[in-house]
This record gives sequence, structure tokens and C-alpha cells, in this order.
Amino acid sequence: MTPMPIALGPTPDDLLADAIVRGGGELADLADAQALVWAGDGVTTFPYELPESIRWVQLPSAGVEHWFDAGVIQRHPDIVWTSAAGAFAATVAEHAFALLLAGVRALPEHLTATTWRQQEFFGRVSTLHGSRVAIIGAGGIGRALIPMLASVGATVIAVNRSGRPVPGAAETLTADRVDEVFARADHVVVAAPATSETRHLVGAAQLAHLGPKSWVINVARGSLVDTDALVNALRDNRIGGAGLDVTDPEPLPDGHPLWTLPNAIITPHDSNPPSVRPAAFAGHVEGNVRRFITGGELVARIDPAAGY
Amino acid sequence: MTPMPIALGPTPDDLLADAIVRGGGELADLADAQALVWAGDGVTTFPYELPESIRWVQLPSAGVEHWFDAGVIQRHPDIVWTSAAGAFAATVAEHAFALLLAGVRALPEHLTATTWRQQEFFGRVSTLHGSRVAIIGAGGIGRALIPMLASVGATVIAVNRSGRPVPGAAETLTADRVDEVFARADHVVVAAPATSETRHLVGAAQLAHLGPKSWVINVARGSLVDTDALVNALRDNRIGGAGLDVTDPEPLPDGHPLWTLPNAIITPHDSNPPSVRPAAFAGHVEGNVRRFITGGELVARIDPAAGY
Repeated sequence: MTPMPIALGPTPDDLLADAIVRGGGELADLADAQALVWAGDGVTTFPYELPESIRWVQLPSAGVEHWFDAGVIQRHPDIVWTSAAGAFAATVAEHAFALLLAGVRALPEHLTATTWRQQEFFGRVSTLHGSRVAIIGAGGIGRALIPMLASVGATVIAVNRSGRPVPGAAETLTADRVDEVFARADHVVVAAPATSETRHLVGAAQLAHLGPKSWVINVARGSLVDTDALVNALRDNRIGGAGLDVTDPEPLPDGHPLWTLPNAIITPHDSNPPSVRPAAFAGHVEGNVRRFITGGELVARIDPAAGY
Repeated sequence: MTPMPIALGPTPDDLLADAIVRGGGELADLADAQALVWAGDGVTTFPYELPESIRWVQLPSAGVEHWFDAGVIQRHPDIVWTSAAGAFAATVAEHAFALLLAGVRALPEHLTATTWRQQEFFGRVSTLHGSRVAIIGAGGIGRALIPMLASVGATVIAVNRSGRPVPGAAETLTADRVDEVFARADHVVVAAPATSETRHLVGAAQLAHLGPKSWVINVARGSLVDTDALVNALRDNRIGGAGLDVTDPEPLPDGHPLWTLPNAIITPHDSNPPSVRPAAFAGHVEGNVRRFITGGELVARIDPAAGY
């Protein structure tokens, strides 16, 4: 099969070039290309005319108001446009996975050791293999996390509003069954949007269902977890630990007990740092190139009528 | 069909006895057996003489240097020996992955923070997505690690003796090209057997090819890494960090600089803790018993000439 010719602008970019090739495309001049991956933030350098061969344009940002304001999208009604919305779900999921694995492998405790305590650690180190991990919220982050968990042999209980089965999850339950989910899960990852309904979704009652080796990971918003209840559970070692990229309050104030609890890992809302964005965008591009070539539905398609 | 008589030593073990029976064998005294499954760690209790009926011996560890050192394997050139290589591959690979992710996500530094330093961490947190990870040694651990790395969008450069392509790796190079591998890899995971050829495979020259964000993970044997060269690279922040489940010397003595370097994570050879081990070894034994009986190729066959 001939690789799909895809143009990349405004400047050469190794990361994106690799992504295009990994997705099944081949770099081509704009005149010969069927798609254009655009990595420039400003609209002024964007080509005013596009060749008729172009059927799809990938833009680099999640919000695309300025592309509409400049009339770029409206000028080409026959082209499919996609934004970078959701592109950063994978990096947040990777962060959640890093926190969970660090907990299960007892890395916080290892990092304080200054002597070879193998026998003691034999009793602390565990595995995700064969464990059940609940993912609260099956949006982009939750869905990106599922193949990571599958790769180490964990099974997933997904929780969403509709209860509609989430691909890759062993089961999907609705949010009103969250207590049952905590009772059956070995670990919990919180990845749901912050709403009045999800506030303190993880409170004392839910934490009480977990065991002394269970880790709670929050990469969503601080308000979903009742901080005081969590601190109490951590202090009493009623759960294994918590990995929090978001906190309530946020920023976490100096002197807060979460800073010094040995079974808490705090990352200051840095799961999607600016430095990672190019790589995350490259992953988004790779996936969309693959979908474009195989006729799949492109992710983050822009609706010209809706303006986003 | 008469079940195959297989001996189990040095002590009775329900899990392994069940595994032998499930594989199609039947427990027998050593004198009557055609194979021996040995679950004892020490070589001193191993029978000096083996009956002529014994055609296969299954040893309980992945690394078998001490069995060679004691001359046990060389004493019986007509017997097929298998190690437990691969049996614990998945859990060791998961550990390696946890160490690598912890490094890339700057978890050691996060764990020392007691104030919200988001801007600073924005510059430290990285991602495995789009990165190139070299796996030195494409045995069971290396092969088990590949799907984990794939799940976060990393690509793999595998290094083995033959250069025969490793499934799932973007490329496979022979060990004599290790310098080239270090020059092109973002991170390196050492998972090769300890031999005279692999001693100090990772030394000052190789580390010099890595960058200030590169992590080196060793879950194989301490001797593969030149500890002094590694300590120097870590001290000068010439590499991002090291995650070591094995060290040289091992156990790592109190007061060794690796204990307190902020960019080193030491786990005391606990990537395959006893709690996870019996079930994994039993599964390995069951599979090899079945292969032995049906004339299949045994997994983890030891090459007496190669010494592993």
C-alpha cells in the first residue's frame, strides 16, 4: 500500500514527522498532500489557499476560536478540520499510571531507605497484575488509562454517568453504584469532571470500603475527594496511599498534612506540563493520521456550524 | 497414558505438586523419576548424584550463576536444565516500568517537596510518549516490558546477541552496537543476563551518550552497570537518574552514595517479591511439565556452554 501523502507546516518538526510516519503517512509537499498537519499557533502564516487534494487539516490547539475569527475554517467548507482537544488526555493518564505504579511498588518508602531492607520490602511490594482498578469517569483520561492498565494485567471497572459499556473495561457501572465499586476495587483512579454531583464523590464512606494496600489516585479536580476524610484514612493507614495531582484546597498550602504524610504523593497539577505538549500533540496526530488512512472517525473534529 | 513420574524437591509444596499434576505429571521419588522440579534456592541441598532416569531438571531461579559456580550443571551434561527465566518476567518488567515512569514523572523530587512548586516542576515532569527506550537483553523481562512501553506510546530499541528482530520492538540491534543504542535512546532498561561479556556493559562511555533527562533502569544484575561511573553521572546530573533493583556491590552497603543521591531510586532486589513468586513459578512449571511430556521445546532452557 502506498503511504498517504501528508504535509507538515509551518516548519519541519521531527516529533510530528515521526508521528505522521508511525500513523501510516508519508511526508509530502502541500501541493501533493491529502492532509495537512499544522503546528503553528498563529493564523497569519497559514496558507490562504489550500490545494484541492487536501481533505483534512489538523490544527495544533484545543481551542480554535482564533481560527474561526480569522475565517480560515469557513473558507474551506469541504475540508474536515480537527483540533487538539483531548490530545493531552494520554499524558494525564500516564501520570496517573505512574502514581499508581509508584504506590503499588512502594516507591515512596523505598526512597526514604538508606539501608538494604529486602525482607521488609518483600512484604510491601505488590503488583498490579491480577488487580481490579476502578476508573471513576470514563472520558478521555479514563479511556487512555485502560490500555496502560491492561498492559500490566490489571482489569478495569469503569464508572460513568450512563453505564454504557466502556471499551476495554471488564465492566461499566453508573455513578450511583460508586460504593459497590469501592468495595470491589483494589485501587481507584478519579478522572471525572468537577460538577456539583461529583463533589466529594470520594468521602469517608467510600474510603472505608478500601483495604490497607489500596491506592487512590486523583488527576481530575481536587473537589472530587473529601480531603479531610482522605487525610484521616492515610494517617491511620486504612488505605495504602494516595497519589494526587490535584488537591482541595489548591494550591495545597504550606504546612498541610498531605505534604508530609509518608503514604501521599503530591504533584502540583503538573501532569500535563507545557514541555510535554509537543509529544502529546504528536500522539494525537499519529492517531488521527491512522484513522484518516483507515477511514476511521477523526478525533476532535471541528463543527464549523457550532464554531468549535 | 501413564502419567510421567516427576520428582519435587527439596520439600513438599502443594502449589508445585498441583502444577506438576495439572501439567500431566505424577509425583514420584527421585529414583523413579524422569524429571526433577527443584524449588530450593541453595545449591548445597541439591542431590550430588542424579539417577540416570532423570532427563530434565527445572531450577527455581531466573539467574543460575550460582548453579554454574557450584558445578552442578556441568556435572550432568546429558540432562536438559531449565531455569525460571521468564516465570517472573512480567512482575519484574512491571517493576522496571514503575521505576522508569517514576523517574520520567520526577516522583523522587516531588516526594521531597513541601510547598507547591508548579512552575519548577513544569520543567521537570516529562513523558514516555514518543520517547525511545532501549531494552538491553530481549529475554522474558525485556519482551514482557515491550507492551507496557507501547501502551504509553514509547518505541523500543531492543538489543540482543543475535540481532534477530524482537516482536514489538521498532528495531533490534546486536550487543556490539550498544554505544550506538545509547546515543539514540532516551532511556535504557538493562535486562540482560550477567556474563563475562555483559559485565560493565553500561560504563562511563555508554552513559556519556545519554542526556540530562535520561533514566537508566537495571532489573537484571548489578554487574552489568559500572557503579562508580553511574554514581559520577548521577552526581553531575549528566543523566536524569537511575532506578536500580540490583546493585554492585549487593546488598548495597550502608553509607553508599547511591542511598542518598536524589536522582537514584534503590529497591533492594524486591521486584519479584515472594508474595508474587509461588503462583508465577507454579505456572512456569506446569507449562514445562506439559511440554516435557508432549515433546515440546522447554521454556528457559539453560545453555551450559553460554553459562546461562
